[in-house]
Amino acid sequence: MATDLEIARAATLQPIDAIAARAGIPEEALIPFGRFKAKIDQRYARSRTEGAAGRLILVTGISPTPAGEGKTTTTIGLGDALNAIGRRTMICLREPSLGPCFGVKGGATGGGKAQVAPMEEINLHFTGDFHAITAANNLLAAMIDNHIYWGNALGLDTRRIAWRRAMDMNDRALRSTVASLGGVANGFPREDGFDITVASEVMAIFCLARDLDDLQARLGRIIVGSTRDGQPVTARDLKADGAMAALLRDAFAPNLVQTLEGSPALVHGGPFANIAHGCNSVAATRLGLSLAELVVTEAGFGADLGAEKFLDIKCPSAGLAPSACVVVATVRALKMHGGVAKADLGREDVAALRRGVVNLARHVENMQGFGLPVVVALNAFTTDTPAEIAAVREAMAALGTETVHCTHWADGAAGATALAEAVLRRIEAGEARFVPLYEPALPLAEKIRRIAQRIYRASDVQIPGPVAARLKRFEEQGFGHVPVCIAKTQYSFSADPTALGAPEGHVLPVREVRLSAGAGFVVAICGEIMTMPGLPRRPAAETIGLNVEGEIEGLF
Amino acid sequence: MATDLEIARAATLQPIDAIAARAGIPEEALIPFGRFKAKIDQRYARSRTEGAAGRLILVTGISPTPAGEGKTTTTIGLGDALNAIGRRTMICLREPSLGPCFGVKGGATGGGKAQVAPMEEINLHFTGDFHAITAANNLLAAMIDNHIYWGNALGLDTRRIAWRRAMDMNDRALRSTVASLGGVANGFPREDGFDITVASEVMAIFCLARDLDDLQARLGRIIVGSTRDGQPVTARDLKADGAMAALLRDAFAPNLVQTLEGSPALVHGGPFANIAHGCNSVAATRLGLSLAELVVTEAGFGADLGAEKFLDIKCPSAGLAPSACVVVATVRALKMHGGVAKADLGREDVAALRRGVVNLARHVENMQGFGLPVVVALNAFTTDTPAEIAAVREAMAALGTETVHCTHWADGAAGATALAEAVLRRIEAGEARFVPLYEPALPLAEKIRRIAQRIYRASDVQIPGPVAARLKRFEEQGFGHVPVCIAKTQYSFSADPTALGAPEGHVLPVREVRLSAGAGFVVAICGEIMTMPGLPRRPAAETIGLNVEGEIEGLF
Repeated sequence: MATDLEIARAATLQPIDAIAARAGIPEEALIPFGRFKAKIDQRYARSRTEGAAGRLILVTGISPTPAGEGKTTTTIGLGDALNAIGRRTMICLREPSLGPCFGVKGGATGGGKAQVAPMEEINLHFTGDFHAITAANNLLAAMIDNHIYWGNALGLDTRRIAWRRAMDMNDRALRSTVASLGGVANGFPREDGFDITVASEVMAIFCLARDLDDLQARLGRIIVGSTRDGQPVTARDLKADGAMAALLRDAFAPNLVQTLEGSPALVHGGPFANIAHGCNSVAATRLGLSLAELVVTEAGFGADLGAEKFLDIKCPSAGLAPSACVVVATVRALKMHGGVAKADLGREDVAALRRGVVNLARHVENMQGFGLPVVVALNAFTTDTPAEIAAVREAMAALGTETVHCTHWADGAAGATALAEAVLRRIEAGEARFVPLYEPALPLAEKIRRIAQRIYRASDVQIPGPVAARLKRFEEQGFGHVPVCIAKTQYSFSADPTALGAPEGHVLPVREVRLSAGAGFVVAICGEIMTMPGLPRRPAAETIGLNVEGEIEGLF
Repeated sequence: MATDLEIARAATLQPIDAIAARAGIPEEALIPFGRFKAKIDQRYARSRTEGAAGRLILVTGISPTPAGEGKTTTTIGLGDALNAIGRRTMICLREPSLGPCFGVKGGATGGGKAQVAPMEEINLHFTGDFHAITAANNLLAAMIDNHIYWGNALGLDTRRIAWRRAMDMNDRALRSTVASLGGVANGFPREDGFDITVASEVMAIFCLARDLDDLQARLGRIIVGSTRDGQPVTARDLKADGAMAALLRDAFAPNLVQTLEGSPALVHGGPFANIAHGCNSVAATRLGLSLAELVVTEAGFGADLGAEKFLDIKCPSAGLAPSACVVVATVRALKMHGGVAKADLGREDVAALRRGVVNLARHVENMQGFGLPVVVALNAFTTDTPAEIAAVREAMAALGTETVHCTHWADGAAGATALAEAVLRRIEAGEARFVPLYEPALPLAEKIRRIAQRIYRASDVQIPGPVAARLKRFEEQGFGHVPVCIAKTQYSFSADPTALGAPEGHVLPVREVRLSAGAGFVVAICGEIMTMPGLPRRPAAETIGLNVEGEIEGLF
């Protein structure tokens, strides 16, 4: 069977100006990066986004399992199918991070016939956006230590520096470090560490900012630490916001690429869905809505994490309201939720599937709770049996939700036409009544509780005294109105990654809260979360290389 | 007076395909990055470089002083002037590093009317080459620690890891760190640190590799550390070379931009001239020689460092032989070498100039010693007096060298026409008899001694026993034939940065030697050298920002 890379390489891509023309983007707004990538001029983008009329379709998924769900692949397949049936559609995706490319995962540009291209370039440096974000993050870090070195006029408490350095790499050695060692010339030693770039607040800001002014204002609001008497010190106080915005200026323009079937796709920004909000940039989504009749976009991890944040953080902040929601599942993954081991997924097991489908059902109910019409996309594997598919259909029908078995991986647009038609029926019926889960005025602790109870079906939250006091303090500092970004395991509705299916009655333990004042949310850390991954025993990097043609091999 | 940024912004740039056409590059070989930058396809570049017929002009300078010499500006002015008088000329420059942009220096794209453009983009991320180099460097670092974490099958001695991480930032806090803290999941704690990207071996490799195959082979030869019994461990042993080459593939294509007067310029690579060899990429220089009648290129720091390495490292490795050499000086800088304080440089002081001109004279003699005809470019300042200029002319005439007072900063090409004509006269007289300072067969210690005695005019070198033993060991390992890259202060011919003018009879202390097996040289560290700069008390970053038009302000 052909690998994703082989399929991608065999495709004939159109010049990016032809794709732009198809999307209605004038040539003078196009900033080419090679023949098959372009950025869209920000002045043009800004001129478009008032009064945008497109409808927004959110693609989300069940709680992820090692079996894989194919959310990105389905987003691309759906977009291709909508275009194929004559609906002018833009696909909006996150940019891949370099770290996972060299780790377990390989690329993150879809799969089979449902891919965005050029695959190798998007997966590696693309147009350099993440490098710009890394540089902006680390310039601020350097300016913090430099400020302390030269006399610390702002009185930063070196024990309370909240700003970590960033690198777009899976590198566990950098999680926890001591910096400024080696003597007087190197500064004041202090504990430090690196997050992967996609987990940085700069990434979140980049993805939530409406325009360059908003970007710089948000960068200025970043709280880097505090004085000994607890007063916050910001990036603005350090005069770092201007240079950070300068570093990000060109990156902030959305990137245009194409699918293997020639659909236009905006691939821009890519925050983690745990410590950050897990969706592509507001700038790209708004541009897409101004250009197309329909925009298909995805949110990271399962719907409890990515979609909840999409709906409670990104949409309210950007003034967006989705018209429909697609929840992606696979028979294999649902069987894992029903207790089947990965090695046994090839065997029909309707009983296990019925046990596992509760995970899908709850995600669907949650999305319905936001006022969204839902369609379930069952991403086909060759091992799926009619009885298994029927069992999913039946469970979903009980929720008033249609299930479409999709074969876009193997068949491209043709494999997702039924899904596209199902989604269109729900949109055109005008059923969406989007309403976020909570109002800005709800106290921060109550926002956490509401997410825990309504989305995770926890019986309660456990917020230790010092954490509660910190939330109060954020409210006193004027940040009570911001949304909450929950950082917890993506593998379960609970904070316990082994509790598959649809656990309920659990208690969500809030271990720590952090204010991302620039991004405009409070992060509530529940259980262990990872802001800097490590490489596996046999990293994908070991098999990546150039062939004799100078082509890149080993990305998959 | 207009700043460099204002002059740059006021210029009307030509589309990069027009510049490419002027340079003889076919449109299909052009990979555009926006409207005014492009990369040149590597297959095209490779097809060109056999039998290249262009003549190479090296621009170097006196020992730098805080007064500034304008080597880049002169390189650009000379290239513009050569083009203006009808000689098809390519300019080859180094890419600027982000670190200094945010520190003291501002941009590094020339000045006045002798600049390459687009200035802000070249100074900030440009086409992302340095980010790719940083990523390749840090992927190798992550793979080293990951290898140790998963069992250390190669038996790396964690006390002897020679590979440091890299960041394109001035950040003294990262010079010396301890990594892998925080417990079992984060690995084995060890001393670590970061170099600025331009000081990394990957940068040196990038700039010396002839093609992608050579690039990957050199990456594989990098020695990352050793086992407990002293056996070297390479990047190839870690299977990191393929992924590193994949990360560097697109960056390795040379970048084309233009001067404000429309001359084509290849701006590619940018290694430090202390720990590395300080010249732009071999790939770009060779491409330039295949396209143009003349190529003007520069080497970093003074001629004792940058030019010596250009002539003893880059030229032999790449099969290049320059046809002429321009040594850049200013009246102001020569007066500093004569003992005048920076504040007093505006006053005529012929006596001080005569004391200081010995610095210039020795650099000129050294270049003549390589068999190169030399022209002195005296980069004009408004405070220069006729008597001072005459004193320089007189001193140079004694060496058989013409001095040309140039005003390209103020006047563009017209200000360097006389320089261009002087250089052409020397080239057309066919005087060049280039010969490197030493043969590959000379033992490493003798190579160091020869550079010290012939170029620095030291009476001898001081090589402590353990350092000499290490050099012997490199020879036993098969690295005796490589050139030596001296890392010493750029401010003096000696290792003492305060010894201006033309010191002699000093002893060059060799503190440490390192094998850069991938780059293909041995670094001899003499005195203190800095591989990670710090930011000043008031970093330029504090005043860099976006104006209401979204333009970048504060780069100068």
